[in-house]
Amino acid sequence: MNIKNIAVVSPMYHEIESIITKKQLNKHFRFLPEEKVTNDDFKWADAVVTFNTKNNYDYSQVKWVHSLGAGVDRFLYKKKWDENVLLTRTICSFGQRIGEYCLSYILKDLQCHDEFKQLNVEKRWNPITPRLINEQKVLIYGTGEIGQKTAQILSTLGVTVYGVSLSGQQKQYFKEVFPIEGHFFRLSEIDYIINTLPLTEKTEKLFNRYLFEKVAKVGFINVGRGASLDEQALIDALNNHHVRFAVLDVFEEEPLPENNRLWEHPDVFITPHISAVTTPEEGVDCFIETLMNIEGNTPLRNQVDIHKGF
Amino acid sequence: MNIKNIAVVSPMYHEIESIITKKQLNKHFRFLPEEKVTNDDFKWADAVVTFNTKNNYDYSQVKWVHSLGAGVDRFLYKKKWDENVLLTRTICSFGQRIGEYCLSYILKDLQCHDEFKQLNVEKRWNPITPRLINEQKVLIYGTGEIGQKTAQILSTLGVTVYGVSLSGQQKQYFKEVFPIEGHFFRLSEIDYIINTLPLTEKTEKLFNRYLFEKVAKVGFINVGRGASLDEQALIDALNNHHVRFAVLDVFEEEPLPENNRLWEHPDVFITPHISAVTTPEEGVDCFIETLMNIEGNTPLRNQVDIHKGF
Repeated sequence: MNIKNIAVVSPMYHEIESIITKKQLNKHFRFLPEEKVTNDDFKWADAVVTFNTKNNYDYSQVKWVHSLGAGVDRFLYKKKWDENVLLTRTICSFGQRIGEYCLSYILKDLQCHDEFKQLNVEKRWNPITPRLINEQKVLIYGTGEIGQKTAQILSTLGVTVYGVSLSGQQKQYFKEVFPIEGHFFRLSEIDYIINTLPLTEKTEKLFNRYLFEKVAKVGFINVGRGASLDEQALIDALNNHHVRFAVLDVFEEEPLPENNRLWEHPDVFITPHISAVTTPEEGVDCFIETLMNIEGNTPLRNQVDIHKGF
Repeated sequence: MNIKNIAVVSPMYHEIESIITKKQLNKHFRFLPEEKVTNDDFKWADAVVTFNTKNNYDYSQVKWVHSLGAGVDRFLYKKKWDENVLLTRTICSFGQRIGEYCLSYILKDLQCHDEFKQLNVEKRWNPITPRLINEQKVLIYGTGEIGQKTAQILSTLGVTVYGVSLSGQQKQYFKEVFPIEGHFFRLSEIDYIINTLPLTEKTEKLFNRYLFEKVAKVGFINVGRGASLDEQALIDALNNHHVRFAVLDVFEEEPLPENNRLWEHPDVFITPHISAVTTPEEGVDCFIETLMNIEGNTPLRNQVDIHKGF
């Protein structure tokens, strides 16, 4: 594949430009914010490096699209993709970042941070014994790079980690991986559920009434995609205590609108899609590695399977 | 050592009785709350199993005292101890518990829980990028069983862990251990300080104005003993930002009096001495193991060095 002209479209285009310029790649670049992109840029470009843009561009005009995020639903979910266009995605410290994010909220719960905060306000000395993490069972949806790294971090601390994946293939750091079809039989034993799944037609509204009916006092953490969650089903499950609390980093509509009920629910903790941030440095590193591999005909570890959607 | 009569003095005496009774030990027991203990019990007993009692008993009347807690300052700090009386202490999951406690507050800080909580209240979507734990430097005071386990948990997650101990002897999981005399030269690089030291004459008011002047925007966690901290020096260090926040589980006076200024300081988080709880089950297990070792003349891993004070 002959790549000469590359358009970088991202809110971070300035930072990315200054990093790429130092690398002295023998390519032509255009660095643009989304609002300045025209169809002429797509005609000019052999490749586009981009983040979750809001516009529906016609990517079939270029040879290669590299996503600066891990998720590629923006390109594939309920869309047509030209199979002649290579699609790659960023793989960097996402697993470590999401693992630490999840661990922080599990420990916050086990160590009763909220209860002690309230006792601080009341100036009351009321001992509550924290629970140990090695007595917990966590079920991670998604056993790919992010789910597996999260499983590694948790299992190292003694957590019993189960997984759910499309294939149900067994993987390191999971005590057992279940196929997504018929994984329900252990749900009532689980203390925390973590969703790391990509958004595809198979994961849309996976966390629904039917699933939440099968859990008991679970902590639910969503770091996958907002559209995998049925918000109303979650709110009902919180109110009937099938779900004890929810930590949500992703939403169907982002930024989460001010009038969304989730903001006000006392058992919902909202973070603004920060659990797995691509830093400009890491984004550029992964892009350049991918470019080198493409030009060297080296197998790509980050090529997206268009049909699977991740 | 011939041990026949054992007095168990603890607020948990009921729970301990029901566990010990099931073990069918061939000993005579008296299970008592502190307020029911008389000197007659001490005359009767060969051994006393006890927690941090408030009274100053004359322990020289018995052959063996077993502390249900890890700390033994209650028996030794600014007191005389009869060297003929064996003193042992509980070793159980304290290290794991304290490690998880400390990790939870470090992650709370790195993951900006408080900032996001405030944004939740304001219904504002304002992304802040969490910091990774493997970029942090932590200095642990105390490299014994508790300090070392905490170092293991943190270093497994990629934290650079330094230690401070009386001897300065190098230990696993620490990048470097410094002797307590002259350990100051790295203090300004440290992100979090954890105190796990026992209270002795050498650790009294160790965390004072002189030490806090040498740190910069550090997070300070005290899970050792309250009397190792100069409270006024901490408050001054918080106010001039040498210390960014403090998490305190131990205090000179416990329960912490309602009129103590620490309750109201916005950068102080108070927990009621819960970071290392002895459960009745674990307390009994360690006591029985110690009893068996004493009767079998097996070396004791939990004998207190009266002169060191821990």
